[in-house]
Amino acid sequence: MLAARYAGDGTMTVTELDPLPPGPGHVQIAVAYNGICGTDLHILHGHMDSRVDVPAIIGHEMSGTIAALGDGVEGWAVGDPVTVMPLAWDGTCPACRAGNRHICHNLDFVGIDSPGALQGRWNVDADLLVPLPRTLDLKHAALVEPTAVAVHDVRRAGLARGDKVVVIGGGPIGVLIASVARSEGADVTVIELDDRRRSAVAGLGFTALDPRDDTVAQVERWTGGAGADVVFEVSGAAAAVLGAVDYAKVRGTLVVVAIHPEPRPVNLQRVFWRELSILGARVYERRDFDAAVALLDAGEIPADALISATVPLSEIQSAFDSLVSGEAMKILVDVQAGQEQQ
Amino acid sequence: MLAARYAGDGTMTVTELDPLPPGPGHVQIAVAYNGICGTDLHILHGHMDSRVDVPAIIGHEMSGTIAALGDGVEGWAVGDPVTVMPLAWDGTCPACRAGNRHICHNLDFVGIDSPGALQGRWNVDADLLVPLPRTLDLKHAALVEPTAVAVHDVRRAGLARGDKVVVIGGGPIGVLIASVARSEGADVTVIELDDRRRSAVAGLGFTALDPRDDTVAQVERWTGGAGADVVFEVSGAAAAVLGAVDYAKVRGTLVVVAIHPEPRPVNLQRVFWRELSILGARVYERRDFDAAVALLDAGEIPADALISATVPLSEIQSAFDSLVSGEAMKILVDVQAGQEQQ
Ligand SMILES: [Zn+2]
Ligand SMILES: [Zn+2]
Repeated sequence: MLAARYAGDGTMTVTELDPLPPGPGHVQIAVAYNGICGTDLHILHGHMDSRVDVPAIIGHEMSGTIAALGDGVEGWAVGDPVTVMPLAWDGTCPACRAGNRHICHNLDFVGIDSPGALQGRWNVDADLLVPLPRTLDLKHAALVEPTAVAVHDVRRAGLARGDKVVVIGGGPIGVLIASVARSEGADVTVIELDDRRRSAVAGLGFTALDPRDDTVAQVERWTGGAGADVVFEVSGAAAAVLGAVDYAKVRGTLVVVAIHPEPRPVNLQRVFWRELSILGARVYERRDFDAAVALLDAGEIPADALISATVPLSEIQSAFDSLVSGEAMKILVDVQAGQEQQ
Repeated sequence: MLAARYAGDGTMTVTELDPLPPGPGHVQIAVAYNGICGTDLHILHGHMDSRVDVPAIIGHEMSGTIAALGDGVEGWAVGDPVTVMPLAWDGTCPACRAGNRHICHNLDFVGIDSPGALQGRWNVDADLLVPLPRTLDLKHAALVEPTAVAVHDVRRAGLARGDKVVVIGGGPIGVLIASVARSEGADVTVIELDDRRRSAVAGLGFTALDPRDDTVAQVERWTGGAGADVVFEVSGAAAAVLGAVDYAKVRGTLVVVAIHPEPRPVNLQRVFWRELSILGARVYERRDFDAAVALLDAGEIPADALISATVPLSEIQSAFDSLVSGEAMKILVDVQAGQEQQ
């Protein structure tokens, strides 16, 4: 089989490897599609070398079908369409014992801390499988994982029907959050600097604002002077964090979705003055995955608009490069293409 | 009557003024005691000159008895012991309409935006009165307002019985928060740099840690590796904000109580990683005032330990000066002393 590996130093290589049979309790998946995300780019840039064993098969936004069952696996059959919730927890730490297994102190994120889906045959613990309806296109199903992130972010925000929501950042995660919030009955405005992305967001039916305009005044007017119920910071920019609280109403909520490796200046005076809540949101719970499958299957997520291109595994390096340049939204790797039939 | 006024430029002056009769719907209070707080020091230092009409009678932590009733005031009698919840809202802004009148967009904070209690006879709207039980010492009752702040902070935190709580800062508000949290069944650790204050906190039965020690490791050990349920940042120090999140458990809460006039670096990576909540908390609601009266009346608040000194109105300048030097916890002004009997 072909597998794509992060080889260190900004490089992805494609290698022929022998597939292994699945161990007890595991299944072998014929991977169909795998999306590339911001975390994969962080890995490519060497920011996560402390967690990744080079050369490393990465990839965690995937869809596929079961190719083989290991000993003791029940309830699954060869040919079943599946995706994987790529979290393995210890079950014993204080977070797990308190019911927050998804952010276990010793979380194994599959595709980072252990091998991922950018390979023709992928063996995973059957406990991580999430069934897919046969009505769901496997390309769209490769968006289940990032959609589950968005579902989790929206759940953390405690969104109510009719809420006015500001999403700062109109990239893939921003559009997914906007789409999930809309599906929950929210009225959504997206703020995005890039002209093309802003047009794309507007084309999906969202109000799209240019941060070079007086967006605080625009949100004030839109909300009748109250401010937004919920603000999602998805851009990762320090200036966006500083300004995000100015959109929020009294007792409003700011969800910090983007990764901020450095401490960021936060306007705590405004947090105090309006009694705001700033919430961290990380990965997802199983119910978020199930909700994401249902949303994609119902067509509530603009999957085709989000998928900029689908490329064969052999072109993985150029796929990463075009994501780095910021041109693409989401690129899917067609992991089946070029694989020998087995 | 004698009145103390902020005269600008770091100066408090004491002046003889003629008391006015209370207007319709107002009562005249014979002020007994008035505590000086951090906000009063900010006023003294000129930081709030945009909100204060110099010369200004300030003061908002008070107790007293009703001396006269204006036209149309019902349900109150001369001699009733009272305190004042010093908030006047417009009732019409988006915050008020959403039920958050205490942080009205156009809040009038009595004692800052309008005249306060540092005068022998104080006329206030009867709607602001809070009745005091006759069993409650009027000196202790001067602590109702700051205790209500602490009750509000603890309510915002959503504290549960048995929670482990870290309070950063062992000044008056820190001790009040620690005391209120303890009264709700929490196990409380206070972190305080000043040796004398730390000893005083320990003397009140709280675990008191020195921030020069490895307090993160100490809290880890205390909480069995989980981290604290709730952290209150009361110190106002930038370094404390940065480190505060390191004490909190997965899904833990940080309540920002101190005023931070400048944006502060916040470790959003940790907020994300542990799915923390950072909450702003400002002033109080009526139920917080009522709870504060009950706690003081029940002896749950170490009022005598908090009151460093009681000084006559004529010594107001030296009272402010000793607070500036950081020697005192809470200084009460005896507003009756030196007033002519009327
Ligand atoms: Zn765990
Ligand atoms: Zn209002």
